[in-house]
Amino acid sequence: MTAADATSAAAEIVTAGMLVIGDEILSGRTKDRNIGYVADRLTEIGIDLKEVRVVPDEQDMIVEAVRALSARWTHVFTSGGIGPTHDDITADAIAAAFGVGIDHHPRAVEILKSRLAGRAEINEARLRMARIPFGADLIETENGMPGFRLGNVHVMAGVPAVLQAMMDEVCRTLKGGRPMLSKTLDAERGEGLVATPLAAIQKAHPTTVIGSYPYERDGRYATNIVVRARDPAALDAAFADIEAMIAEVRAKYP
Amino acid sequence: MTAADATSAAAEIVTAGMLVIGDEILSGRTKDRNIGYVADRLTEIGIDLKEVRVVPDEQDMIVEAVRALSARWTHVFTSGGIGPTHDDITADAIAAAFGVGIDHHPRAVEILKSRLAGRAEINEARLRMARIPFGADLIETENGMPGFRLGNVHVMAGVPAVLQAMMDEVCRTLKGGRPMLSKTLDAERGEGLVATPLAAIQKAHPTTVIGSYPYERDGRYATNIVVRARDPAALDAAFADIEAMIAEVRAKYP
Repeated sequence: MTAADATSAAAEIVTAGMLVIGDEILSGRTKDRNIGYVADRLTEIGIDLKEVRVVPDEQDMIVEAVRALSARWTHVFTSGGIGPTHDDITADAIAAAFGVGIDHHPRAVEILKSRLAGRAEINEARLRMARIPFGADLIETENGMPGFRLGNVHVMAGVPAVLQAMMDEVCRTLKGGRPMLSKTLDAERGEGLVATPLAAIQKAHPTTVIGSYPYERDGRYATNIVVRARDPAALDAAFADIEAMIAEVRAKYP
Repeated sequence: MTAADATSAAAEIVTAGMLVIGDEILSGRTKDRNIGYVADRLTEIGIDLKEVRVVPDEQDMIVEAVRALSARWTHVFTSGGIGPTHDDITADAIAAAFGVGIDHHPRAVEILKSRLAGRAEINEARLRMARIPFGADLIETENGMPGFRLGNVHVMAGVPAVLQAMMDEVCRTLKGGRPMLSKTLDAERGEGLVATPLAAIQKAHPTTVIGSYPYERDGRYATNIVVRARDPAALDAAFADIEAMIAEVRAKYP
């Protein structure tokens, strides 16, 4: 790879961090389903999720995590804490993290009014959901109150169906990187038999990332081997070596 | 509360951080199931899980996260990256984080030998699983290779069944704090109707933590309200106020 190629390849890498906000995940009461969804969507559009943090509904911890992730990765995605109740403090924490003010956003108030029309009255608590940090853009979906984007931070709801609608909307607007391609092969043998040759193959194919995922079925250990790369030729070359290695191991340990 | 009481109460608070290690979680290929298990078990024994991080199979990121979590919380629990393959780098990263060496641990080698006896040969890759940082204690379970504890960091496997066995073993040895008690009430009304009075109740009961979790069923919004406290009397007092408030809201909005 020439220096120019390396620069162009580096420019194509788009990264992300995710912040899950909520006491209920840390207490175990609610099992997170948002990390997997965000990870899947980002992988599809060629953005590398590099770090996830889960923090409680505490302003200091949210501010610290948002700042750390925002400084480090191209994008940050948050889930949780944007409802109308006293424990929904994400919008205020994001405003604090960026050192900006926060107030009712005219378009968010309009969305709230049209959603409630004929069904319920506007009250102070519901208006809380229309509080958006200064300078933020709304993330509007067909149903429900909007999330928002401030700088490189995309702020979404915690309820999985709502988060998914917001994430889909955000993904339409993001410039993805060169997608990470992947191929998987079931070695049908335990990790202990493939580990040494697999390490050699990883070494011989440094532009690929080879992962090994053991599982047990009917008392027998087996291993899924996943090779990932942005360059299809590099992917195929590593995969061919893995196939040949597995064939050898299977022949030796039938 | 007197100053002595406050000190004694603070001494009873035991905290934890968790570190999930693995490219496969960040790519979305594997959906994490370990955070929820660790959270549940810690809540049961009165330890507050305060922060979770998910990082890739990269030594720098593991070392940085282990150091940050280990310095901040009473205990750290890690999952993933302790198998025999080249991408299993957790043991080396933990040794690096603590600045200690690493080598084959006699007891871990013995466990490996007895597991493989009559089934498979010992090879270099399998011996890799017996590499344990100097100064660490093993976390032994009935089946499988051991995890280990170094300082306040408990290192466990990523495969859920194995993690669960290790976590159960660790929990038997931990001194828990005063457990966080909780009570839940379904308001059967949307958050918009309960948010304002609920905020007032939270303010009136500062030693409790009141959370509000909206859900939708058959197109109707409802809210689970969870109150948590270490002191049973404080819990009951806040819960009684919430019950009275909900009865009022239900009567007003039938």
